[in-house]
Amino acid sequence: MIHKLTSEERTTQLAQLHGWQAVTGRDAIFRHLKFADFNEAFGFMTRIAIKAQEMNHHPEWFNVYHTVEITLTTHDANGVTERDIALARFIDEVAKAMQRG
Amino acid sequence: MIHKLTSEERTTQLAQLHGWQAVTGRDAIFRHLKFADFNEAFGFMTRIAIKAQEMNHHPEWFNVYHTVEITLTTHDANGVTERDIALARFIDEVAKAMQRG
Repeated sequence: MIHKLTSEERTTQLAQLHGWQAVTGRDAIFRHLKFADFNEAFGFMTRIAIKAQEMNHHPEWFNVYHTVEITLTTHDANGVTERDIALARFIDEVAKAMQRG
Repeated sequence: MIHKLTSEERTTQLAQLHGWQAVTGRDAIFRHLKFADFNEAFGFMTRIAIKAQEMNHHPEWFNVYHTVEITLTTHDANGVTERDIALARFIDEVAKAMQRG
């Protein structure tokens, strides 16, 4: 079974991600993203959805027009695990690539 | 400019939709949907996204695994309009078709 990161491990991992923060009152991490428009935001979500399905690890996310808010946690471990860090890393890569243009 | 529905108009329209309710403290409508799994939920969202873009009228929505929560309102009119009812009607049709199988 996948183990929950310790507070120290989580802090170390968060420092290597882009724009992620710990959620207050919950063992989860959060990132707010802003795109050019809805087309770009939903295109981003589609790339993440395909990856999430491949990983069998899914985000909690909210979208309105060009913004996407993502919360990651591992329900089975009741906290943040390596799976969340791996998905967050992929999200950062896609966001960076899309926002580069 | 598109006009905001009166309270009476909104009530009449809501009664013809499926599972939608008025949001407390905000002129908006809300529906919670549950699908078989993430694949089905995100497939549903993709159909709605394409329609929303075509209508140039976008939802506020939240997804986690097999659930989707949708809030509709028209920011330009500061309340619920015919555009929201039209999008809600489309959402109902797609949801019904997908949940029929």
